[in-house]
Amino acid sequence: MTDTEPGLVALDWGTTGRRAWLLDAAGRILESRRSGRGLLATTEGIDAHDPAARAAAYEEALREACGDWLTAYPRVPVIACGMVGSAQGWVDSGYRTVPAPVGSGTLVRVEHRAGVLHLVPGLRIASDDAAPGDVMRGEETQLVGIIDELGPERYGEALTVVLPGTHSKWVRIEGDGRVTGFATAMSGELYGLLTRHGILARTAESSVRDDAAFARGLAAGRSRGLAAELFAARPLVLDGLLDAGSLPDYVSGVLIADEVAHLLPSTASEAVGTAPEVVLCGAPDLCRRYAEALARHGVRTTVLGEEVTAKGLWRIADRAGLLGPASGRGRQDEDVRLEGTPGR
Amino acid sequence: MTDTEPGLVALDWGTTGRRAWLLDAAGRILESRRSGRGLLATTEGIDAHDPAARAAAYEEALREACGDWLTAYPRVPVIACGMVGSAQGWVDSGYRTVPAPVGSGTLVRVEHRAGVLHLVPGLRIASDDAAPGDVMRGEETQLVGIIDELGPERYGEALTVVLPGTHSKWVRIEGDGRVTGFATAMSGELYGLLTRHGILARTAESSVRDDAAFARGLAAGRSRGLAAELFAARPLVLDGLLDAGSLPDYVSGVLIADEVAHLLPSTASEAVGTAPEVVLCGAPDLCRRYAEALARHGVRTTVLGEEVTAKGLWRIADRAGLLGPASGRGRQDEDVRLEGTPGR
Repeated sequence: MTDTEPGLVALDWGTTGRRAWLLDAAGRILESRRSGRGLLATTEGIDAHDPAARAAAYEEALREACGDWLTAYPRVPVIACGMVGSAQGWVDSGYRTVPAPVGSGTLVRVEHRAGVLHLVPGLRIASDDAAPGDVMRGEETQLVGIIDELGPERYGEALTVVLPGTHSKWVRIEGDGRVTGFATAMSGELYGLLTRHGILARTAESSVRDDAAFARGLAAGRSRGLAAELFAARPLVLDGLLDAGSLPDYVSGVLIADEVAHLLPSTASEAVGTAPEVVLCGAPDLCRRYAEALARHGVRTTVLGEEVTAKGLWRIADRAGLLGPASGRGRQDEDVRLEGTPGR
Repeated sequence: MTDTEPGLVALDWGTTGRRAWLLDAAGRILESRRSGRGLLATTEGIDAHDPAARAAAYEEALREACGDWLTAYPRVPVIACGMVGSAQGWVDSGYRTVPAPVGSGTLVRVEHRAGVLHLVPGLRIASDDAAPGDVMRGEETQLVGIIDELGPERYGEALTVVLPGTHSKWVRIEGDGRVTGFATAMSGELYGLLTRHGILARTAESSVRDDAAFARGLAAGRSRGLAAELFAARPLVLDGLLDAGSLPDYVSGVLIADEVAHLLPSTASEAVGTAPEVVLCGAPDLCRRYAEALARHGVRTTVLGEEVTAKGLWRIADRAGLLGPASGRGRQDEDVRLEGTPGR
């Protein structure tokens, strides 16, 4: 098998979308696809309590996503991360409980008519009576890709990684490669709710990109709390100090500044040393916004693109032995090899 | 005119609902009505830029609300507060800028085919480059009713008044009766958005009242910020530590605790003395929730019902001379009589 031949079909299959990559045996992207049909679209109209109907819907969705690849390369392994491995997904692939090495956990095999799909388990912090826990699915794979992308000179340092999105994740990775904590902020979802529904949506009308309005939102006060600072966008518009079309960017600034002000100290305190730096990975426009918010706290940022998830999936497949000895890597990375049992 | 004869038709006409009262000349309620048809329902399908169409829609809505009273008592004055006096309302009644005495500002006359409607102006804090301002419409009238209800022994003390609702208002009233500051928190709207749309709504399924879940939300941490503390409801449910049906009460607790923690110090600091006390006025269930949150800060509460707005409208009409000399009060309360020009 040479490196230009397909070696892996890799999917990032989330709640509201899915991406599929055809990778060669060295993890290079040969083809990529993106679809807005995620978990919600796949299971629409399906009885959640009928496992057979659900399995059939996912099998059909997998065929839609990459049936041609499965037919053309029937011996190429298939791996997926994301909500497809949740309790509402195809099969529950469980969670590894933190602290846990990045990329650890046993892949769960899903046998179906066209072959086998390998599901990556998520990461969790268990809730207890003192504090709520947290969960991630898909981001654990992104973290593997990020470590890989940063390369050996950064691996070994403690890292704070921020994955902006609908539900932003703030992750602490120690120098020994263990994820020791993470937190989720639903700022992106709040942004969507506020700008699509409710009084700010009615105030906003048609929006235009306005970087100054975003910066103004970033600089807004925090002392009155998020529910008051968000509402303040409306009097600014009524008083003619903010264009109605710039309201979404202002709201984005208020939300991101509040998230960063709270989660930077609580997530990054142990990982950020004398030269504070955060690794950002996500959509370019969102990463730019978080970088600007972090710069106001004196934090430098390294920005990586979302395609690191493909690299993460390849690396996990490689370590699990799915790519076979031909890939030349196999099980050499003892410290981060797949181990443990998925917990729930 | 005796006190059992109608003396005033009073309306609290907001964005999503309206209430109408038939009051006697002493301000006692003879009849009351409530409708979900507020500003939004009234102007649905109307071209906002066509003043004649808008006026016709409001005139028809007024007839719907109390046309029978207007016909039966054609000489009884009619007064309204709330968003009906906003730029999107029937006629813009303007704002008084704070600091301003409670209940100050000139009523705006709206002449229509069935008579005259008097609109109460709102209160505003002007935005400037340093800070966003704020606005209220309807609550300024509620404040007049609250002062009236508390009676002379409390009038003269500095007060902190909280009006919980979709957009909660925190108001500081000095001992001389001037409103010197207020803030709006959209916690109620956030609650609605989060429990009707998005991931927490999907997690919640059918909800039941759960006071323990509310108390647990009140006690949740604040250090990670609202966007993270809200998301935390989901892992609590996934980990079996919170019933899915109790999630709305938990979210309510998180939102109200965050609002109180931020706005109690910034609004109440100057008004609350050695025996901290806050006056709450609103729906009983909401007031109970705020009272519980405030009690955790050692703050006692006095709770008043929403019908104080009727008393506020009557008091404003009385001071403006709408009720005539027969009401026996006229313009005696020099310190709070209507004065100034509506600003905008």
